[in-house]
Amino acid sequence: MNTTATEAYVNEAISNLTATLTEKDTELEGSIGAIGGLGDVLWLLLGAYMVFFMQAGFALLEAGGVSAKNTKNILLKNILDACLGGMVWWAVGYPFAYGTGGASPNAFIGGANFFMYKGTTSMNDSDGSAPSGYFYAGWMFQWAFAAAAATIVSGAVAERCNFMAYLIYTTIITAFIYPVVVHWGWSSEGWLSAFKAKAGDDSEEDWSYDPYLGGNGFIDFAGSGIVHMTGGGAALMGAIFLGPRTGRFNADGTVSDLHRGHNAVLQALGVFILWFGWYGFNPVSTLAFSMMDIAARVAVTTTLSACAGGCTTLLIHIACGNVPDVGPALNGILAGLVGITAPCVVVEPWAAAFIGFVAAFVYYGSSKMLLKLKIDDVLEASPVHFFCGAWGCLSVGFFATDIYVNNGVNGAYAADKDNGDSGNYGAFYGGGGEQLGTQIVGVLAIAAWTCGTSALMFFGLSKAGVLRVSPEDEQTGLDDSHHGGSAYDMQTMQANSGTVKVEAV
Amino acid sequence: MNTTATEAYVNEAISNLTATLTEKDTELEGSIGAIGGLGDVLWLLLGAYMVFFMQAGFALLEAGGVSAKNTKNILLKNILDACLGGMVWWAVGYPFAYGTGGASPNAFIGGANFFMYKGTTSMNDSDGSAPSGYFYAGWMFQWAFAAAAATIVSGAVAERCNFMAYLIYTTIITAFIYPVVVHWGWSSEGWLSAFKAKAGDDSEEDWSYDPYLGGNGFIDFAGSGIVHMTGGGAALMGAIFLGPRTGRFNADGTVSDLHRGHNAVLQALGVFILWFGWYGFNPVSTLAFSMMDIAARVAVTTTLSACAGGCTTLLIHIACGNVPDVGPALNGILAGLVGITAPCVVVEPWAAAFIGFVAAFVYYGSSKMLLKLKIDDVLEASPVHFFCGAWGCLSVGFFATDIYVNNGVNGAYAADKDNGDSGNYGAFYGGGGEQLGTQIVGVLAIAAWTCGTSALMFFGLSKAGVLRVSPEDEQTGLDDSHHGGSAYDMQTMQANSGTVKVEAV
Amino acid sequence: MNTTATEAYVNEAISNLTATLTEKDTELEGSIGAIGGLGDVLWLLLGAYMVFFMQAGFALLEAGGVSAKNTKNILLKNILDACLGGMVWWAVGYPFAYGTGGASPNAFIGGANFFMYKGTTSMNDSDGSAPSGYFYAGWMFQWAFAAAAATIVSGAVAERCNFMAYLIYTTIITAFIYPVVVHWGWSSEGWLSAFKAKAGDDSEEDWSYDPYLGGNGFIDFAGSGIVHMTGGGAALMGAIFLGPRTGRFNADGTVSDLHRGHNAVLQALGVFILWFGWYGFNPVSTLAFSMMDIAARVAVTTTLSACAGGCTTLLIHIACGNVPDVGPALNGILAGLVGITAPCVVVEPWAAAFIGFVAAFVYYGSSKMLLKLKIDDVLEASPVHFFCGAWGCLSVGFFATDIYVNNGVNGAYAADKDNGDSGNYGAFYGGGGEQLGTQIVGVLAIAAWTCGTSALMFFGLSKAGVLRVSPEDEQTGLDDSHHGGSAYDMQTMQANSGTVKVEAV
Repeated sequence: MNTTATEAYVNEAISNLTATLTEKDTELEGSIGAIGGLGDVLWLLLGAYMVFFMQAGFALLEAGGVSAKNTKNILLKNILDACLGGMVWWAVGYPFAYGTGGASPNAFIGGANFFMYKGTTSMNDSDGSAPSGYFYAGWMFQWAFAAAAATIVSGAVAERCNFMAYLIYTTIITAFIYPVVVHWGWSSEGWLSAFKAKAGDDSEEDWSYDPYLGGNGFIDFAGSGIVHMTGGGAALMGAIFLGPRTGRFNADGTVSDLHRGHNAVLQALGVFILWFGWYGFNPVSTLAFSMMDIAARVAVTTTLSACAGGCTTLLIHIACGNVPDVGPALNGILAGLVGITAPCVVVEPWAAAFIGFVAAFVYYGSSKMLLKLKIDDVLEASPVHFFCGAWGCLSVGFFATDIYVNNGVNGAYAADKDNGDSGNYGAFYGGGGEQLGTQIVGVLAIAAWTCGTSALMFFGLSKAGVLRVSPEDEQTGLDDSHHGGSAYDMQTMQANSGTVKVEAV
Repeated sequence: MNTTATEAYVNEAISNLTATLTEKDTELEGSIGAIGGLGDVLWLLLGAYMVFFMQAGFALLEAGGVSAKNTKNILLKNILDACLGGMVWWAVGYPFAYGTGGASPNAFIGGANFFMYKGTTSMNDSDGSAPSGYFYAGWMFQWAFAAAAATIVSGAVAERCNFMAYLIYTTIITAFIYPVVVHWGWSSEGWLSAFKAKAGDDSEEDWSYDPYLGGNGFIDFAGSGIVHMTGGGAALMGAIFLGPRTGRFNADGTVSDLHRGHNAVLQALGVFILWFGWYGFNPVSTLAFSMMDIAARVAVTTTLSACAGGCTTLLIHIACGNVPDVGPALNGILAGLVGITAPCVVVEPWAAAFIGFVAAFVYYGSSKMLLKLKIDDVLEASPVHFFCGAWGCLSVGFFATDIYVNNGVNGAYAADKDNGDSGNYGAFYGGGGEQLGTQIVGVLAIAAWTCGTSALMFFGLSKAGVLRVSPEDEQTGLDDSHHGGSAYDMQTMQANSGTVKVEAV
Repeated sequence: MNTTATEAYVNEAISNLTATLTEKDTELEGSIGAIGGLGDVLWLLLGAYMVFFMQAGFALLEAGGVSAKNTKNILLKNILDACLGGMVWWAVGYPFAYGTGGASPNAFIGGANFFMYKGTTSMNDSDGSAPSGYFYAGWMFQWAFAAAAATIVSGAVAERCNFMAYLIYTTIITAFIYPVVVHWGWSSEGWLSAFKAKAGDDSEEDWSYDPYLGGNGFIDFAGSGIVHMTGGGAALMGAIFLGPRTGRFNADGTVSDLHRGHNAVLQALGVFILWFGWYGFNPVSTLAFSMMDIAARVAVTTTLSACAGGCTTLLIHIACGNVPDVGPALNGILAGLVGITAPCVVVEPWAAAFIGFVAAFVYYGSSKMLLKLKIDDVLEASPVHFFCGAWGCLSVGFFATDIYVNNGVNGAYAADKDNGDSGNYGAFYGGGGEQLGTQIVGVLAIAAWTCGTSALMFFGLSKAGVLRVSPEDEQTGLDDSHHGGSAYDMQTMQANSGTVKVEAV
């Protein structure tokens, strides 16, 4: 080079151009990133809508599974699990579950954002002082989960639970019992959580994972334990403390067939809607548009487990000497769905089918066991949700693959893990027993918490004398005795039924 | 610098590179913009599907709420509101509503794109001469809205309206009455519209807003007024001109309980489906992928109002001395949903809950008022849709926040406003009374138009003697007398019902 | 220029900057492309969920359309079409349909990816040795299609088909009959396929189309032929080989009204759900986020055909001297939907309405013809799916526009076509008869294959004596005789029905 001036001129021109280029690139990256962010919100909203629609599925499944005389009672419970649940979740449920970010992280319970309050009403979450679209969408998604957890209980306590007792227990579950489990398992502070932020990382954007337990923490992707064991555990306690429906068990210990669902069509439609909604429950639990490829795998594992659960339960039912009935197929599908909810993102398709296969036995066996123990869980909520939920959590310890747990591109758990201890995976693949151990701890902790607090609650309601309706009201049916009359007006149905006449007495 | 040649060489190189860079950036920006545009279409399509699915919700809600003997009649009306409505909306409804862009803007009614005709069949809307994907998706979304508006009426006139009269009134509503209101309130030319384009801006892409009324125009985001008051107002006129069902009111002025819905399960499922569909109705009314963060907030306000409406109405019902029944909870949810439909995008979560709370009183009070006036609105379509719709529009005047109305990043109304008069917002926040005044004008205008034209229409049908079925047919039921027999064949249901036998006469 | 050194210095600086620029651009293009890829997966997943939900629609439509005494039987069939179908589709169905990419392309049947096995469990499809998100999402979408095809049959053979026979035929259809047709029509190797890859193009990403037949191959966009004719053809054969229900046809050849559906509400809800699901079926068959504009047009054509089909069938029914009944309107909607499924992407809106109009006549006429032939297709599955499916395929030959078939921006078929013979389009537009000829070949081939193999299958089942239940069981009803009792427990419904009492005998 012969002159510094030339060099300087060139350098300046290049420097100017580079600055322009960098600015433009940053702008483009921002635009691309913004689309990804909008995609995240879209994804969460769609998931929230689908999981919310599961309320209709639960309502139909439960309405079809009880006597016609208790139909309106169970419908009203499901309606209020969404409505009252929404109010409670807004006020205290979400804050206890996800209200984190305070100065001192709390591994047990959250404590911020009551009534969604974040300081301002603008939408710019960059400093955490205002709700973002992602915050609102996440609230929606979690509200739908909370309503699902709460509504599981109504199936177990159906046909004899006092309406006032229902209002109290569903409020306590949505306000406290369930949020605490969510905080444990899914928040950035929880003692079980796989997403626990490293100490000192206070921005949600930047944190790296540093779980308390093992390399990965408790892996319960979409809530076999956190949602289904919680709802199912409370359901089990409710059924126990209420005692069986009058006449449910004969003097000789056998089960009476006096009580059966009044409409199989409602049950089937309910399960189809639940299955549909589960595609919001599981795949959308990826929570990010960028994990869409993983969500597709989750949809597949969810499907195969549901299919295997349904087929297997029907086969078990037939093998036990029964005819092919609709009920076992439906509950088998739900057993498979509940079972795959924890492991859906960390297992291969074949393992998903196997998990559904085992879930069928878990459901069928636990259902029989409850009958032997004379526990009257009307909709079999605890066999489906509690016992299959536990199996789902444990199955992670056996079938989680190395690549899905520990490879950021393929898995939901590996990203940004920062504790240098991320080698755990399923025992079946030679990953050792540590993850299984963590899963056992999680299952026992959730079971102890949810059954303990629920037992206390139902014991209190029982002592207060408000838990169960009178034998007369039970006999009459809750709709006539408590809700203003039957869900059905059959007279006009009869009168118009062409070839049939019914004599009014 | 010592030589011009060097400088020129450098400049040329830089210039070439800059040109390449600019070309590439434009290309990348185009790719990013294209994704946003595809996202817009996806968003509108999903919304259209969800709002279309509300037809099933209306059908079930209405079927469950009438006598069994009129079930097929109400089903057929709902089916045709989608089918016949689709044909009419294609031919003239959409053109009257959104067929704008002509040489002389029309503030009252549109007049282009009949049968979707835009000149060519290719898909390139850049010069407006061909339908774009966004045009098609928008048509879908608006068709679903039109079907919803039309189908609201069938609930009010149920159990006694002649089928021929139904065909005529639903055609007129979908073809003319509703499209005119849409043109007023949502088109780029309407006299009420918040989205009225500035004179001279003829390309939809580029226009800036210059509403006739106040700084913002009439704010009715997703149609508390435009959809629900229109449907509900026509419903009210229909109920008035038809007169009450035979025996509905006793001689002493009290209400008979002779008429009641025949299936609460259908009603509950209907409301769950409607609630689900409302997440297409409200959040997707953002109409743009880029407003997804705002859509999430809309989902939250929609949810809180629905929850508050359901809980509050049930409480009012109990406070009035009744037992907790399913019906009030369901209609309360709908009241909250209708109420929040106008303000959903401009209010804070707490205000949404309050709007739902008030909507419960509006619904309950107007329902009682109609009974006092001996107006027999079978499904309470006008209390839910007309009166709560009006409340929703008015609530904007109280609770719209400054930031959501006037800040382009956070709101749907602020973008590109060009009239230098954008300071109006809710009176509660100190925004003065101008927006409330505009809202009152809008409510009165919609009420006058829809009730006036509907009254004329139903009066004509009544005079022509085709409005109401004969007392005999009403007694027999419309299914047997007009639609080929009952919706149900109960004989086989009975015969198979194990423990029960029915004697055929 | 005075010195080479200066020039070299400048060139090097420019070269470095260009390299940086190119690297950055590639990175940005990659980010943008990745979003598009994630959008593809999202799109397919949403479509899969919606099409899966159609199972609920089929279940309700069929349940409502049979006697109450056969309700659980038909529900169980629909449940198993999803569950058992999922297992079979996973094992062999998908592999036979889409398991391509082997060394020697097979125009008749696929043969890879059994049990989704692709060699590894990681998610990186770049070398085809591992399943990608798109692979998983595509599997989901195709599983839902397979379940739909299989479940069509159950409607035709309802109320008399042995459950064991059902298990066998549904397995054979899902495992073999349907996958072969899919391979023919939609795979990259099929002899009918419009998407047949040019020889030598083995990567799915890069292939250009080189169909065997004509310039475009057989155009059946979303499966009027491939899905509906296959399901409907098997349904027709099942109905023929089973023979009519006892008492269905009177001695004088007239049709008895002894058999009719027991619940019109279920039928209507079923059709609404099917219509909703069809928006997954047709628009999502674009299979790509980038074709969203086209998907919107598909949604419009789907809607207009459904609307026209419903209105027209009701008019035909009335013109034939009947009252306006719900059934014809519902089946007319389905006729329009089935008819538009093949041509939805290549026709203009007006043509879509016309196709639905004609489909109404095809449905109504073929339904009457079957009754004349004393073929008892309970749910009219073959008139709706087989005959209207054939009409849909043929309509492409008449109404496919040049621009939609041959213009890559507007159509699904034009992209990357490489055979220099892409001028075919609809005869109505002067496109000649070649496309119509191809469509006829496709229709005949599918009809021959599906009817031939199904006839063989049902003949075998009949000879083996397992096809039909005993007359006694048919009389009693399948629910009591085979499935453990009625779907309904009416006793409690009665007992609570306030004003009515039923005497137990």
